[in-house]
Amino acid sequence: MVPLATRKDVAQRAGVSEATVSRVFNNIAPLREETKQKVLEAAKELDYHPNAIAQSFAKGKSGNIGVIVPYLPKVRILSTYYFSEILSGIGIKLAEQNYGLLLLFQSPDEQLDYTQLFHSQKVDGCIILGSKDTESERESLSKLHQASVPYCLVNQTFQDEPFYSIDAEHYEGSKQAVTFLIKKGYQNIAFLNGPSTYSNSQERKRGYQSALMEAGIPINNRWIFQGNYSRTSGMKKAQEIAPIMTEIDAIFASNDRMAIGLMQGLNELGYEVGRDYALMGYDDSDLTRMVHPPLSSVKVPLFDMGKLAAHHVLTRLTKRHTNAIHARLPVTIKERASTHIKK
Amino acid sequence: MVPLATRKDVAQRAGVSEATVSRVFNNIAPLREETKQKVLEAAKELDYHPNAIAQSFAKGKSGNIGVIVPYLPKVRILSTYYFSEILSGIGIKLAEQNYGLLLLFQSPDEQLDYTQLFHSQKVDGCIILGSKDTESERESLSKLHQASVPYCLVNQTFQDEPFYSIDAEHYEGSKQAVTFLIKKGYQNIAFLNGPSTYSNSQERKRGYQSALMEAGIPINNRWIFQGNYSRTSGMKKAQEIAPIMTEIDAIFASNDRMAIGLMQGLNELGYEVGRDYALMGYDDSDLTRMVHPPLSSVKVPLFDMGKLAAHHVLTRLTKRHTNAIHARLPVTIKERASTHIKK
Repeated sequence: MVPLATRKDVAQRAGVSEATVSRVFNNIAPLREETKQKVLEAAKELDYHPNAIAQSFAKGKSGNIGVIVPYLPKVRILSTYYFSEILSGIGIKLAEQNYGLLLLFQSPDEQLDYTQLFHSQKVDGCIILGSKDTESERESLSKLHQASVPYCLVNQTFQDEPFYSIDAEHYEGSKQAVTFLIKKGYQNIAFLNGPSTYSNSQERKRGYQSALMEAGIPINNRWIFQGNYSRTSGMKKAQEIAPIMTEIDAIFASNDRMAIGLMQGLNELGYEVGRDYALMGYDDSDLTRMVHPPLSSVKVPLFDMGKLAAHHVLTRLTKRHTNAIHARLPVTIKERASTHIKK
Repeated sequence: MVPLATRKDVAQRAGVSEATVSRVFNNIAPLREETKQKVLEAAKELDYHPNAIAQSFAKGKSGNIGVIVPYLPKVRILSTYYFSEILSGIGIKLAEQNYGLLLLFQSPDEQLDYTQLFHSQKVDGCIILGSKDTESERESLSKLHQASVPYCLVNQTFQDEPFYSIDAEHYEGSKQAVTFLIKKGYQNIAFLNGPSTYSNSQERKRGYQSALMEAGIPINNRWIFQGNYSRTSGMKKAQEIAPIMTEIDAIFASNDRMAIGLMQGLNELGYEVGRDYALMGYDDSDLTRMVHPPLSSVKVPLFDMGKLAAHHVLTRLTKRHTNAIHARLPVTIKERASTHIKK
């Protein structure tokens, strides 16, 4: 190891006490400008770096924000557009403010005690991705909320709970997507949703139903399917959806990955997007431009949601009184060839 | 804030001194089993959590491994298959061993002083992704290597330097890919490479050249192009490659994103994969199965490379004498429809 200069070395070189060196590095008044300069010069000459852990200890802060992501043994969660976009937004904001991003993996079998993260002072704040509406999650979040520590949920809103969250207008987005299909001339629209433990799945279902109701189209529950947001689950659902292909003329899927899996599965069974049905995805991931035909989708500002969540947590860290946050960012329809009508 | 139980509270409840409580939590002998149990019980009853920062301070360890990723303002680096796979591998390994993953963004304008990360004790080890062969990077890595701290590079090897790295057999992989094309009957093979500051780009170029030479096919430098590994750069190169489309019958691209961009760009100019040329990508990302026709590629075990790098750094942390590591994992050809010959 390279020998490290100590506080004592700096004190000797600058001709001051060790306490004075500490006062300079912790910026504790009163301090004569001349003394300060002398200490800083000596520190520079000796390549002295105040110990971050010792500084953290003195301040009771780690300088890190924890980001909790689900850990699924066989799924590369970070490789999905959804998680990596949110994470990039968080990362850029924290880097700007010189905070560290500590990635924390949560196994689905064991509920994380979020408050424990603060007890152990591993993080100064936390951002929770992939949260689900379960009994134990509600309990854990209630504890966290009551502890008045800086935290924020992303893309999950709990009804009847005061939890802070940055979400998107998923009800409106789905309603607009289905209304868009109806205006394009499609009448018989099937729906492939994700698991209902996510509030955004529930909101998308309500949006789908509202759009049909407002257009006076009856809701057919046989046309509503459920995958798990993976491409494989969309592919598998093709088997179940194939028998109703003669009845429907469009499909709305709750994310792009499922839409693409479904497109591929139906293709193998002889059904082509554009010729036999219109297809609309959700998220507007980079995948939409890579498939053929390009996939119409609903753009969710995931990167901005991550940035905003980080901003909120950092604000709450420095200001004791910060307003409650329950924000929803708008989403927008992106039209591509997969919803064009071929005559 | 929830009032936290202190060491003093635990000492009082257990009827021991505060020093004894510390000895229990830091596992310092001698300790009577009975005393230990009494302290642990009291701690449990009071929901006492020893302060992680204080513990870190005592041990001089942060419990975190830093992962350095390039920060490019307009590129969502984490959203690419390449980075997110490596990161997932690292994350899973560190989580298994209860280490934190601290993401650190490196701006291209300013060279990070890697040693500084250790001086400031923010991390106990570090893993460097996206490293480039530049003068300042070599300097910074030399310093890091000489400091004998646990670190590892991923997917970058420096010639004539002892730096620890986990890489893949890119020379062999490219040679195999081009040989595969030649065996399929293609003779006139263009090459779209990435920037030569990456050792893996240089290795791929040598692999391309070797395969042609061994097959007795002359190398035509007019058929070698360079993008920057983004889909957009592949798309732009279509303009430059279009004029030679009558001369060539196959293209080998150094990653899947550029291959897909090129496929789209050439498509707009009237050239179709399968009909007019064969196309081979590299990485074997999830994108290869989403495009049409599916893209042949070279599978790089990015996830395993991340896991192995983390394993190496953790081993070096605990064992003072660890062998130098310069590992290369094998890659494999994945054949798909984009290299099928249509007669």
